[in-house]
Amino acid sequence: MSNRGISLGELAVRFGCTLKGDPALMVCRVASLETASSDAVSFLANAKYKSYLSQTRAGVVVLDAASADECSVPALISKNPYLTYARVASILHPLPRYPAGIHATAVVDPSAMISADVHIGAHVVVGAGCVIGARAAIYPGCVLGERVTIGADTRLMANVTLCDDSLIGERCIINPNAVIGSEGFGFAPNGALGWVKVPQVGKVRIGNDVEIGASTTIDRGAIEDTVIEDGVKLDNQIQVAHNVHIGAHTAIAACVGISGSTTIGRHCMIAGQVGIAGHLTICDNVVITGKSLVSASIRKPGVYSGSLHVEDANKFRRNAARFAKLDELAKTVRRLSQQQGGAADDEER
Amino acid sequence: MSNRGISLGELAVRFGCTLKGDPALMVCRVASLETASSDAVSFLANAKYKSYLSQTRAGVVVLDAASADECSVPALISKNPYLTYARVASILHPLPRYPAGIHATAVVDPSAMISADVHIGAHVVVGAGCVIGARAAIYPGCVLGERVTIGADTRLMANVTLCDDSLIGERCIINPNAVIGSEGFGFAPNGALGWVKVPQVGKVRIGNDVEIGASTTIDRGAIEDTVIEDGVKLDNQIQVAHNVHIGAHTAIAACVGISGSTTIGRHCMIAGQVGIAGHLTICDNVVITGKSLVSASIRKPGVYSGSLHVEDANKFRRNAARFAKLDELAKTVRRLSQQQGGAADDEER
Amino acid sequence: MSNRGISLGELAVRFGCTLKGDPALMVCRVASLETASSDAVSFLANAKYKSYLSQTRAGVVVLDAASADECSVPALISKNPYLTYARVASILHPLPRYPAGIHATAVVDPSAMISADVHIGAHVVVGAGCVIGARAAIYPGCVLGERVTIGADTRLMANVTLCDDSLIGERCIINPNAVIGSEGFGFAPNGALGWVKVPQVGKVRIGNDVEIGASTTIDRGAIEDTVIEDGVKLDNQIQVAHNVHIGAHTAIAACVGISGSTTIGRHCMIAGQVGIAGHLTICDNVVITGKSLVSASIRKPGVYSGSLHVEDANKFRRNAARFAKLDELAKTVRRLSQQQGGAADDEER
Repeated sequence: MSNRGISLGELAVRFGCTLKGDPALMVCRVASLETASSDAVSFLANAKYKSYLSQTRAGVVVLDAASADECSVPALISKNPYLTYARVASILHPLPRYPAGIHATAVVDPSAMISADVHIGAHVVVGAGCVIGARAAIYPGCVLGERVTIGADTRLMANVTLCDDSLIGERCIINPNAVIGSEGFGFAPNGALGWVKVPQVGKVRIGNDVEIGASTTIDRGAIEDTVIEDGVKLDNQIQVAHNVHIGAHTAIAACVGISGSTTIGRHCMIAGQVGIAGHLTICDNVVITGKSLVSASIRKPGVYSGSLHVEDANKFRRNAARFAKLDELAKTVRRLSQQQGGAADDEER
Repeated sequence: MSNRGISLGELAVRFGCTLKGDPALMVCRVASLETASSDAVSFLANAKYKSYLSQTRAGVVVLDAASADECSVPALISKNPYLTYARVASILHPLPRYPAGIHATAVVDPSAMISADVHIGAHVVVGAGCVIGARAAIYPGCVLGERVTIGADTRLMANVTLCDDSLIGERCIINPNAVIGSEGFGFAPNGALGWVKVPQVGKVRIGNDVEIGASTTIDRGAIEDTVIEDGVKLDNQIQVAHNVHIGAHTAIAACVGISGSTTIGRHCMIAGQVGIAGHLTICDNVVITGKSLVSASIRKPGVYSGSLHVEDANKFRRNAARFAKLDELAKTVRRLSQQQGGAADDEER
Repeated sequence: MSNRGISLGELAVRFGCTLKGDPALMVCRVASLETASSDAVSFLANAKYKSYLSQTRAGVVVLDAASADECSVPALISKNPYLTYARVASILHPLPRYPAGIHATAVVDPSAMISADVHIGAHVVVGAGCVIGARAAIYPGCVLGERVTIGADTRLMANVTLCDDSLIGERCIINPNAVIGSEGFGFAPNGALGWVKVPQVGKVRIGNDVEIGASTTIDRGAIEDTVIEDGVKLDNQIQVAHNVHIGAHTAIAACVGISGSTTIGRHCMIAGQVGIAGHLTICDNVVITGKSLVSASIRKPGVYSGSLHVEDANKFRRNAARFAKLDELAKTVRRLSQQQGGAADDEER
């Protein structure tokens, strides 16, 4: 598709846009406003980049009605330009399709059920009792343990590990070196003798349309399962501990750690490096800003924060030293306020 | 074992519990109090879940003497219910045993010494001079460099990488995609020319009964070795830099980063996302709460913290802005306090 | 080389050092001052370890002129002892060289161009259109997608994944299980229906002399490329999002997360677990201390911080609670200060 291209007229019809420009013009790829040439689609979704509109050489720009007049080239007018752009781009740049078939070097247990048109790459291992749905693609080096189920049209990038009994839905993308179904971190203390492993007998269940980032790890449940609902998007290097439950359409950025048995609602957005303690409940529609530590349940939708931002290191060091005496400072202020007989102690409200 | 099951009488004898109930009853698996049926063992180790006791349909519940009366089904009474549960569960749900033998697709150097009853899976690579102990299991896709030693009964899950000269003890479990013995991060500054690599000539030595999480990375030493003592439990996505030394039976949760040449004592517990600076010493029996930054040695057992928890984002933003002027604020308070001639300046104590 | 050794005289000539001692003496390995025997080179680069100088049994110590008198064994006097040590060590302990050739189990697409003296290990997969430079070494289990280019003398440790179209320069080292070119985290919101994937059509371009740590992940660009310039050193478990640009000779410690479209300058040093928000610019020669959160661009070279260090957990809890009311506290102090008619409100400057 990216070679032949598509006409602006067809794009307008297909995605319900108003076209300003010649419907016969063809585009075959995407590009940014700055670098686009006339064979490329670009988009404007952030007012910050509006100044590029008058100079772009793109074949067409996807934008909203308010910006159309400033655009010097053809425009596809959409109520949601970024969403429309995503759909146009997915037509021009589909994920690669590998031919159906099982590579000669793959080791597939005879008991595995492989549906039609599945691609299994070089050096893949598929264990006993696995079930692979139609058109799934398993890239080189992936290892599927026993009784792993993969839904139709799901794609495992290279070197992914799916441990025994993992269930993956349809149309998922699992990025390289991710691990699903590893041992949960469960140990019973035994005094001076250390720790005794608690067998982790649950599994991981992942819904449809889930994307999982590179080197993200999702542990199997201790007794019940770890669950990722439909449409969840997990970035790279996220850690999901045993028995976590993530609600549908929640998006989580890279390097987040979620401790065991925590339940996260639907349509949440969790920014990078957030840490979430165990056994908590976070309701639907919660946004958590980067690097926050969530140590109590969140019962109300909203935006939550808990992290300090950088400043000059010397200044920060002085402030941090004051922070270490902040409790005493607050007490001093309260006392001063009382001595002055001023308004009621507003720091205690 | 999980098919045939075990009698309550045998469990009581084997683990020194008092049985309340029919010793001939059989159980064959574990389940939570809420979902258990009569073939399942459950447990109560947290008073929070006591309300489930009266309604559970479990075949038997492991609990302490104080809770036995509230249990409507057979009970195994233990002084340490969670520990007893861990042991019962490990009998009912042993880790899978793969048949001894080397898969036809594994590439094993002729100089490697492979003990009896070792399982080597598909597409495994074992380099020159490796030594693999009895009954060790190496899952598909693992790569062992040269001169790697693995003790008896150790298990490497899929796609683990053990670099040259790594030493792993007995009865260890290394989860998928973990990396042991990668290059330490050592570079000598060379001004405007950047960095010159410092060869990393130490190795990694890991004791017995160590568990290492998925995608955890442990670097080889710069000159001396990186050492993980017996019984250490490392969760997923932990980073252990060159020349770190972790004492026996210390447990570390996911996403912790430990910088080079730091020594951590025995029986410590370090929560998720903690960062520990380099060249520090942390004594035995230290607990560090989640997301803390340890930037100085800890010489005294205890519980240590250093991280701020989430709150409403707008409120947090205002507070964080105040934090940036906290040093000045503290000075103002001191001045006020002095002007009032009040008690000695308690924020300076 | 580490067997035969090298004479002190040759080392002095080769690295421009003044030798104090017998030029005919031979050394064949490196060791620390404490453990060195007479066949070993050691070094002193940190005054903290000076006390070892009088007792070391090293064959030679690399040190600066000021320390030479205290050294009881032969000395190589250098203006930059650590740099000289790095170079000596790299001669005594070169990275292992594997024989040229393609292992019988490797799967190399016929269209791939493999230069002279390349080593391709067991179970490696090299996709269509790849180009591998002279003397490159690709360790077992690596997967190269399609059209991947690797420069001369670059080394991929085991189980590395390079996705389609990745470009890697010369003399790079990529540690085990790293992932280059995975999907960027780009989704357009579609209301209650969740997220629509935005195709990620850029690639990753990595310069010469770059080292990348174990399990580090670098995403391909959304439209333009993700770029890592020459001489950059990335430690383990770093996340580099789509369209990040890292300037030459910047060094980044483990577990750092860099969000999309952020540009980092040259010669920066970023400590462990730092988080950097998206769409920021950090200028050259910036140092950021451990665990800081960078949420605004940094326009001036310097040292920046933003993280709180550990202290006793009870004390920290009290302070953190005060932090949650810090904005109110600051207002109280301002009011008190005004009531006293004292100096202008210094916390508002």
